[in-house]
Amino acid sequence: MKGKKVIKEKADEQESNLGITANKEDDFSEWYNQAVLRAGLADYSSIKGFMIIKPLGYAIWENIQHKFDQQIKKHGVKNAYFPLLVPESFFKKEAEHAKGFSPEVAWVANRDEDSGERLAIRPTSETIICDSFRKWLRSYRDLPIRVNQWCNIVRWEIKMTKLFIRTREFLWQEGHCIYETSEEAERETMLYLNEYKSLLEEELAIPVLSGKKTESEKFAGAVYTLTTEALMPDGRALQTATSHYLGQDFMKVFDVEFLGKDKKKHTPHYISWGMTTRLIGAIVMVHGDNKGLVLPPRIAPQQIVIVPILFGDEKKDSPVLAEAEKIRKELEHEFRVEIDSRTEYSAGWKFNEWEMKGIPLRIEIGPRDILKGECVLAKRNTGEKITAKASGIREKVKDTLKDIQKEMFEKAKKFLTSNIENVSSMRELKEAIAKKKLARAAFCGSPKCEEKIREEVEGITTRLIPFDEKPARGAKCIRCGKEAKELVYFAKNY
Amino acid sequence: MKGKKVIKEKADEQESNLGITANKEDDFSEWYNQAVLRAGLADYSSIKGFMIIKPLGYAIWENIQHKFDQQIKKHGVKNAYFPLLVPESFFKKEAEHAKGFSPEVAWVANRDEDSGERLAIRPTSETIICDSFRKWLRSYRDLPIRVNQWCNIVRWEIKMTKLFIRTREFLWQEGHCIYETSEEAERETMLYLNEYKSLLEEELAIPVLSGKKTESEKFAGAVYTLTTEALMPDGRALQTATSHYLGQDFMKVFDVEFLGKDKKKHTPHYISWGMTTRLIGAIVMVHGDNKGLVLPPRIAPQQIVIVPILFGDEKKDSPVLAEAEKIRKELEHEFRVEIDSRTEYSAGWKFNEWEMKGIPLRIEIGPRDILKGECVLAKRNTGEKITAKASGIREKVKDTLKDIQKEMFEKAKKFLTSNIENVSSMRELKEAIAKKKLARAAFCGSPKCEEKIREEVEGITTRLIPFDEKPARGAKCIRCGKEAKELVYFAKNY
Repeated sequence: MKGKKVIKEKADEQESNLGITANKEDDFSEWYNQAVLRAGLADYSSIKGFMIIKPLGYAIWENIQHKFDQQIKKHGVKNAYFPLLVPESFFKKEAEHAKGFSPEVAWVANRDEDSGERLAIRPTSETIICDSFRKWLRSYRDLPIRVNQWCNIVRWEIKMTKLFIRTREFLWQEGHCIYETSEEAERETMLYLNEYKSLLEEELAIPVLSGKKTESEKFAGAVYTLTTEALMPDGRALQTATSHYLGQDFMKVFDVEFLGKDKKKHTPHYISWGMTTRLIGAIVMVHGDNKGLVLPPRIAPQQIVIVPILFGDEKKDSPVLAEAEKIRKELEHEFRVEIDSRTEYSAGWKFNEWEMKGIPLRIEIGPRDILKGECVLAKRNTGEKITAKASGIREKVKDTLKDIQKEMFEKAKKFLTSNIENVSSMRELKEAIAKKKLARAAFCGSPKCEEKIREEVEGITTRLIPFDEKPARGAKCIRCGKEAKELVYFAKNY
Repeated sequence: MKGKKVIKEKADEQESNLGITANKEDDFSEWYNQAVLRAGLADYSSIKGFMIIKPLGYAIWENIQHKFDQQIKKHGVKNAYFPLLVPESFFKKEAEHAKGFSPEVAWVANRDEDSGERLAIRPTSETIICDSFRKWLRSYRDLPIRVNQWCNIVRWEIKMTKLFIRTREFLWQEGHCIYETSEEAERETMLYLNEYKSLLEEELAIPVLSGKKTESEKFAGAVYTLTTEALMPDGRALQTATSHYLGQDFMKVFDVEFLGKDKKKHTPHYISWGMTTRLIGAIVMVHGDNKGLVLPPRIAPQQIVIVPILFGDEKKDSPVLAEAEKIRKELEHEFRVEIDSRTEYSAGWKFNEWEMKGIPLRIEIGPRDILKGECVLAKRNTGEKITAKASGIREKVKDTLKDIQKEMFEKAKKFLTSNIENVSSMRELKEAIAKKKLARAAFCGSPKCEEKIREEVEGITTRLIPFDEKPARGAKCIRCGKEAKELVYFAKNY
């Protein structure tokens, strides 16, 4: 494009950007770390397993929070805040829950003075919130109660740290709701799962499969767990959000009850649902390329960067700068737009930097563009450049951002669907997993069969039982050959 | 007003609201606890010193966050998130800081596997953020760096718990910025203090004094601390926000340095600033009355409640309900408004409930109002009732909310100014403190004199050295009689 050659030369003279040297296709793990670190999304901290979410990463989280918070508030959910610390006795009340979380709890050295009890840093807040439900709930008139908290969580896992994806501390939201009937509770378990699916697909442009977890993969203490799962480019599945129907067990052990219309005592039905900052990691993995991040426009903290192409003498009071500023002003009410008028870097250097940070759309404007009343739109996702009239820029930008969002989703969707493989034998299953596929198989539903499959295929996990796909008539379980009750998706996971 | 008699009788038939029984004037402490608990702002948790912020309390915090976050982002501050845990060695680097915070640190039983170090739950994040500054800062071009985090904090204090005001865990924001020069750093120490003052006075309707802390009251590790202080109705001062100029000490011990324009290494200048959920407690104390909360319109989660006055036969399909709904629709784009159309409670019962929750404005509408094309606006702060034409309701509501906000601030301002007492002897100082006044005295500035005053007047603290008030020519220190260098405000505190 305009003046490109000159810029190139200038860029070469300068210190080059610290770009990404690893290849996404060849060394996915190294590529991911570089993409996260060099774009400035996050940083390692001095403590093992703990990360720092840098401003760019946190701004993405704020956008996710904002979108999701609006949605859940429409359903009557209210935000609240519960204590960081959980007494040991609370954990022990629900046996399955205690068993599931105890190995990864961080304990505090200081004890509660009143009870002398050990205190845990919350790995999740079911128990402490149930303790409040008991105090808050009196009659059926109080139901449903729907609360949510945005907070930090600590799980002292021993697996290797992976920024955003696996860290000992992470940020999340956890919704906790209680209802008069199981019908309501189960309906809303699905409602919040669908809200996650919308968030992921419409905002983050990440297509997901949704379904139920198998018995061995469900949340510790749940009747069942619903999940959304995304497929990462290295063939591993990533659990992106879960919604649990917890039934009445927690209610009973915490003595949560209400006076019904019939003047008798009843036990409510409980659900909880959550998603975490790992979604930021999913965005990087699914959309990023060898130049760095590619952020979906709807969630990008900055959607547009305007780069004026400036030459030596024109760096101040340039008509190019004035025109760039005019465009910015025209766009700023509708879009998140910045102008990069730094004079110490060449345009080429800036292009690299903003590409690494994943800004969806770059607008380039140089002296010759002004003469023609034009500018150039460069799409981050495809690299495509479009010459646009400066006069109708707002509409053009709007359409282009929409296109980018759509293209990103469709590309990811195509990747997901083309990597699902139907398998009908253990050999096929092993091969599919080795080929980094998401394998779909008929399954009897027995936890024992599931365990055997895990023993026989290294690193495999059951991801979900899809809602709307059933095994063919007469289909047999891939492991035991008995009648199949369901279809199951298998994959390695994060 | 209309139909009032009938409503009264109905209310008597029903279970009465669990109103506030303590008197603000007679038993301030008990009144405060009841106001917080019964309005549903917060709750005690099962762990000593930890509280639950209930939806109404959290919604106020969200409004405070939203207003303040917008302001600081205008100054170029970016939000980020740093780890919950701080290695022990970090604390020890800055001696004063360690000395100040060590007694109230909660330690985690799990240790960092790499270093074997003890880990503390953050009581504040200077050290952990400085550790990141070292990694992030390269050249003068990177400066200033301005980050902020919204997070939870734990300080294992032994004093008695007071909801919002003194708890072991609280929510806050902490801003951390580094600059090339001390001038910039000091200018912005004041800038953020002024943002706090604006937030408190304009949004929360809480007038504050602002100034500098004495040496013994400054933040552990600061060169100096600026503060905003509000006066509570029981004569105690409440520190509402602080902004610290930290100079270069933290920078030096954490090896934070940058390459200057002169190609030499330089040390940046550091500031930090914070405010907490205790502001919610301040709102309750300053504005509340014997009916419960009184929330300033600009920060109230719900600004208006519309209560249709319904009679037995009219509870469904009533023209009153239809008119109430029409008013709600007219107001909802501009205001946070709800309609209370519950049929199981009388209007009188509802009035009590919404008054307890502090909703600034109630709109009452009954059958006779409809005939006249009117409705009644009831102001929570004064109890005043205004008959308004339904046709021009939007403008009237807007003006009335503005009036309420202004009246609340002015009332609190009058309380503050009328409770400042100039004292010129130790006897007068003691008397002023006993009379629950904020005492202003000339002071020599010596920490020794300050200590003596604390020994001689039980519970007294120095609150601040005002910015723009100086001692009279020749004024003597209230304690030692030497030449006064400054004026100081004294009070008991929270």
